[in-house]
Amino acid sequence: MDSDVRADEDGSRRSLYRRVAGSNLGRLAALDDGVFAIVLTLLVLDLRVPVEELAHHEQPLWQPGAFAAESELWHALGEVGPSLLAYLMSFLTLGMFYVGAQGLLDQLDRCDRHFTWLNLTFLLGVSLLPFSTALLAKFMTFRLAIAVYWINLLLLGLLLLACLRYARKARLFDAERTDAFQRAFERRIIIPQCLYVVAFAVSAINTYVSIALFVLLQLNSAIAPNIRPLNRF
Amino acid sequence: MDSDVRADEDGSRRSLYRRVAGSNLGRLAALDDGVFAIVLTLLVLDLRVPVEELAHHEQPLWQPGAFAAESELWHALGEVGPSLLAYLMSFLTLGMFYVGAQGLLDQLDRCDRHFTWLNLTFLLGVSLLPFSTALLAKFMTFRLAIAVYWINLLLLGLLLLACLRYARKARLFDAERTDAFQRAFERRIIIPQCLYVVAFAVSAINTYVSIALFVLLQLNSAIAPNIRPLNRF
Amino acid sequence: MDSDVRADEDGSRRSLYRRVAGSNLGRLAALDDGVFAIVLTLLVLDLRVPVEELAHHEQPLWQPGAFAAESELWHALGEVGPSLLAYLMSFLTLGMFYVGAQGLLDQLDRCDRHFTWLNLTFLLGVSLLPFSTALLAKFMTFRLAIAVYWINLLLLGLLLLACLRYARKARLFDAERTDAFQRAFERRIIIPQCLYVVAFAVSAINTYVSIALFVLLQLNSAIAPNIRPLNRF
Amino acid sequence: MDSDVRADEDGSRRSLYRRVAGSNLGRLAALDDGVFAIVLTLLVLDLRVPVEELAHHEQPLWQPGAFAAESELWHALGEVGPSLLAYLMSFLTLGMFYVGAQGLLDQLDRCDRHFTWLNLTFLLGVSLLPFSTALLAKFMTFRLAIAVYWINLLLLGLLLLACLRYARKARLFDAERTDAFQRAFERRIIIPQCLYVVAFAVSAINTYVSIALFVLLQLNSAIAPNIRPLNRF
Repeated sequence: MDSDVRADEDGSRRSLYRRVAGSNLGRLAALDDGVFAIVLTLLVLDLRVPVEELAHHEQPLWQPGAFAAESELWHALGEVGPSLLAYLMSFLTLGMFYVGAQGLLDQLDRCDRHFTWLNLTFLLGVSLLPFSTALLAKFMTFRLAIAVYWINLLLLGLLLLACLRYARKARLFDAERTDAFQRAFERRIIIPQCLYVVAFAVSAINTYVSIALFVLLQLNSAIAPNIRPLNRF
Repeated sequence: MDSDVRADEDGSRRSLYRRVAGSNLGRLAALDDGVFAIVLTLLVLDLRVPVEELAHHEQPLWQPGAFAAESELWHALGEVGPSLLAYLMSFLTLGMFYVGAQGLLDQLDRCDRHFTWLNLTFLLGVSLLPFSTALLAKFMTFRLAIAVYWINLLLLGLLLLACLRYARKARLFDAERTDAFQRAFERRIIIPQCLYVVAFAVSAINTYVSIALFVLLQLNSAIAPNIRPLNRF
Repeated sequence: MDSDVRADEDGSRRSLYRRVAGSNLGRLAALDDGVFAIVLTLLVLDLRVPVEELAHHEQPLWQPGAFAAESELWHALGEVGPSLLAYLMSFLTLGMFYVGAQGLLDQLDRCDRHFTWLNLTFLLGVSLLPFSTALLAKFMTFRLAIAVYWINLLLLGLLLLACLRYARKARLFDAERTDAFQRAFERRIIIPQCLYVVAFAVSAINTYVSIALFVLLQLNSAIAPNIRPLNRF
Repeated sequence: MDSDVRADEDGSRRSLYRRVAGSNLGRLAALDDGVFAIVLTLLVLDLRVPVEELAHHEQPLWQPGAFAAESELWHALGEVGPSLLAYLMSFLTLGMFYVGAQGLLDQLDRCDRHFTWLNLTFLLGVSLLPFSTALLAKFMTFRLAIAVYWINLLLLGLLLLACLRYARKARLFDAERTDAFQRAFERRIIIPQCLYVVAFAVSAINTYVSIALFVLLQLNSAIAPNIRPLNRF
């Protein structure tokens, strides 16, 4: 055993396994893509029209649906409406963190075991999103549902920040990348998180206004309009 | 902050983050593959034989099913038949847009943050397909179900077109690619969309004929027979 | 339009779109991996212990389960047993076709739109496997369930064969690959398919013997023992 | 047929198909990433707040939820708590085996058909994890549920070990890798497995202490603190 540990070149006495394991950046990126692809698909999957009770209205085979039944289906689809807002918000959240996490990994030129674990924990946070979205879609008037959603957002922000900080500390970054890049990334994580706190605080007064604020914040990140003061972060 | 914005070389005053984030074409392609793979699998997953009520017919352990029960299962499988048509149609739709989106990404030689977001929105449209397929499979005689499906198709077409147009405008294309290529792609999106409008209009008269038209249109795109007049688009 | 069609170099008058679309072999391989990964995971997901009725037996918080309840859970797990056989068989089927399809794609040095569509159809067949497995797991004594499973196997074989034959015809193969390689692949598809017919025919007499034969055939393909006569195909 | 077999260069008389099939290391890695991404997402998906009975409490549209209903939802979320422990444990298990399997594949410089099959079987074990986690989350006081979970862990360890041993035997390893590396990997698999046996044995006395031990063991593997005696394996 000792011989392995001693064989470490940089003197940090890590065991051989720890230096080798979890060091493949490409594989980690592929895992990220997989998790984001699944969560993106699952978000929409939870959308289900409450149509069971319509089934007996089914029309004779060669006739289009009678107008009465059509309007019932229209009504059933309409009920999906409010929760669509929650799903749209989560799509924007997912996209924002996908772009952020992809950008971070692109800047690294190597990876180690601790970074892999931090990134796995970030992916765990990503995979919690369908849960907190479904909760919010069902209980849009409950402050607790908004609190759970906000905690999920906060968790994603903190974990991405932890990935970034660890990468800086462990010198995983591309040598050409200056501190400016690292600060720019950090700002892109911290500023939205501060605004999320405000949006969440509003839920004490009115949950719908709070949700609308969240959606607007995400939308701004996604579309990134060329408004001077907004453009800086 | 200002120093970052000023550091921008092409004078467009985009912040550092915006130039770096979402610029990895390979990662975007991997995300596309993930979403298409999941949706392709999910389409079929919704196929469920209504077999619960047959379970009590289960035979003694070492005997093949009695003929009575067999014919019941046969009947249950038969009921899956009509909705199979909806799934086949969605498979063809999915394949068509997969081939299109893959072709588009292949022509790009770089990617930026706005293109990544446009492509994410296209993937959101793709992930809506199991929802609109299930709706159509259940309510094949309802014009509203066909309308929802057609809106999904339209959305996919518009978003792919938006991706293509943005890529051209932002000069993401491979330098060797001429305008001819871009026009060919555009035609491949627009012409089927025009024909979809016709197929949808027919649903005002008869929903089954409308669905049959959709299937024939997709089938033509998939098989791409060497018929002279069809071959041109 | 005409100008695009005429621009075709090999004189086959295909439009520009058709030459460019669906020509990325790496993307197709990634889609294959995604579909196989999902189906592999879904196969097991359908395994659900019928434990609902045990829930009320739950023990006080700091005591291990009483022996009576334990044996009930043991019994519930035991009922999963028979259907495990169907899942094991499907895992072997999946592995066999994964190895085959991966091998085929490795031999190609380019890809075209028709091959992409053939491969997509093969993936559709793969994604049908959880459906036919669940049917078989539930109705192991029904010849019809075995028939559906066998048709799925046949479909997979025929589609892989179609991919291979098309690839040969369209000269997508690596130039170094001789006819010997192509014949070897073909034999690997056709011979098991002939044996599947025999296994299926046995279901007319006894469905369990038929399933056992299927499992043994797949197991032989997977383990590939070094038995001289078997080793040849 | 014979001619193919004779064409084998290394004299081992394997058929042509067997030498070519399943030899793509990159594809296998992509399949691994896919399965791990799906299982990571599915673990969390099973988390469902028992909220159905709250739905009728929904508030009038522009009012935040009344305090009574909020506390009910709070209570419902609280019930998810205990099973969260099982999911956290499985996340750690998954991460550990992901890092291990990624590390192993990184050390190989080629792959063959048998290794592909061994790795597929390992992935089957990975895809069983949501099943044994759900069982444990539901029956935390049942020794049998802990036994099933432990068998799953044991299976994963044994299969990864089989992959490693086979890779060594079939000389799939990177030529530069010394025996030291191989021994280091093996130790990383065997030592935790020995500790799992201890944790499982404790379940005979108290299932909660047993689960806590499992979590601590996994946590130690994940965080890998720089404690001298622990650091060696």
